Amino acid sequence: MPRYKLTIEYDGTPFSGWQIQEGQRSVQARLTEAVKAFTGEDVAVKGAGRTDAGVHALGQVAHIDLTREWPIDVVRDAMNANLRPDPISVRGVVRVSETFDARFTAVARHYLYRILNRRAPPALDRHRVWHVVRPLDVDAMHAAAQALVGHHDFTTFRSSQCQAKSAQKSLDRLDVSRVGEEIHITASARSFLHHQVRSMTGSLKHVGEGRWHVADMAKALAARDRSACGTVAPAHGLYLVRVDYPAG
Amino acid sequence: MPRYKLTIEYDGTPFSGWQIQEGQRSVQARLTEAVKAFTGEDVAVKGAGRTDAGVHALGQVAHIDLTREWPIDVVRDAMNANLRPDPISVRGVVRVSETFDARFTAVARHYLYRILNRRAPPALDRHRVWHVVRPLDVDAMHAAAQALVGHHDFTTFRSSQCQAKSAQKSLDRLDVSRVGEEIHITASARSFLHHQVRSMTGSLKHVGEGRWHVADMAKALAARDRSACGTVAPAHGLYLVRVDYPAG
Repeated sequence: MPRYKLTIEYDGTPFSGWQIQEGQRSVQARLTEAVKAFTGEDVAVKGAGRTDAGVHALGQVAHIDLTREWPIDVVRDAMNANLRPDPISVRGVVRVSETFDARFTAVARHYLYRILNRRAPPALDRHRVWHVVRPLDVDAMHAAAQALVGHHDFTTFRSSQCQAKSAQKSLDRLDVSRVGEEIHITASARSFLHHQVRSMTGSLKHVGEGRWHVADMAKALAARDRSACGTVAPAHGLYLVRVDYPAG
Repeated sequence: MPRYKLTIEYDGTPFSGWQIQEGQRSVQARLTEAVKAFTGEDVAVKGAGRTDAGVHALGQVAHIDLTREWPIDVVRDAMNANLRPDPISVRGVVRVSETFDARFTAVARHYLYRILNRRAPPALDRHRVWHVVRPLDVDAMHAAAQALVGHHDFTTFRSSQCQAKSAQKSLDRLDVSRVGEEIHITASARSFLHHQVRSMTGSLKHVGEGRWHVADMAKALAARDRSACGTVAPAHGLYLVRVDYPAG
């Protein structure tokens, strides 16, 4: 059956998260309904990352198999017409081979966490940023973040409900920078544990506030103990920005 | 009485616009209520620009007179506490002299108009950008915009309900540029006529689509006739970015 890769943007605010759950309004359920509305088919929409409730996506990736060949522009436009008025948009559709799997062939996932670091609350970016009033030391945060880059046991930074068999992961990049009134934390890895980016972000905030020293981040990692983690940052500042696949 | 300058950010989506109107939910009314809630005083909140329903502000400016001296941090924080949960935020407060008037002493107003120029509808920026599907020629738009810069009679580009005595205005800057998938139109002038930025933007879109030639913009201006204007761009792509005052 012809396979299609979908690149998807959504505002996570009104959804229970990516994954279909009984009685909840999920992104995956809305996409499944939108495919059904134009093809009449019950398809499985398989995503690269199961974002939590409130988490946003600029470039989530999913794949679907349809029984017939459709022009990719028709797939995109028909899905967008049927997703209305929900804040989900299919940015692009590509025809891919059956060896492509949105989840299992992804080679890198890129997340952005946005902190609004000012006294006044956000108005235009409510539900889009984590509002932190106390001025944060971005240089200390970036220095502390480097202790997490590399191959480690990330037990400290994963949810107690994480279902991954191993807590061993390779973190390729964790950068902290100031962009106007915001602090941006960008994280890249082949894959992440449940709540990993939000757990690392909450701990980095402790460093930024001076409650933790830069060296405390390495200690928290070495502890391999969930109770050594800082506060978990809220979902609404997190964005799944992009997912990479092998060329070809 | 001590005068305070307020710099204000708001999401225009849920409001009937800046100005107080009987039976409507306006930004000015919410600010007036927020001042009353912490001072007990009925004050006039005087704004630099009367933004329409749906128009956003990153840096609207207003002034208020209070009967006593308050620390400026208290004014900001107390107003923000009382504005909750509405998407209005007082970014900053400055104590100013009685010669300061948010509307009449402003020397420049800066607006941004955001067009999302791609096939897929916006998800995260719904109500924040004008979605235009057809690819626009940004260079042609920028060239056409230059015909409007300078001192002119802007009758073509003002609402039939505009209450200004004269349609003569000096437009200091009108730039069109591409920023990723968006087209940004930035407009600066001492003051604007009612619907002027949205009227100019709608006409520039005609140029970008090739429906108008670059030279048609100068003809539309010279016509001094409202019926020569292109479509008026929708409110929700427009932002009042900043208002400037003389130094001191």
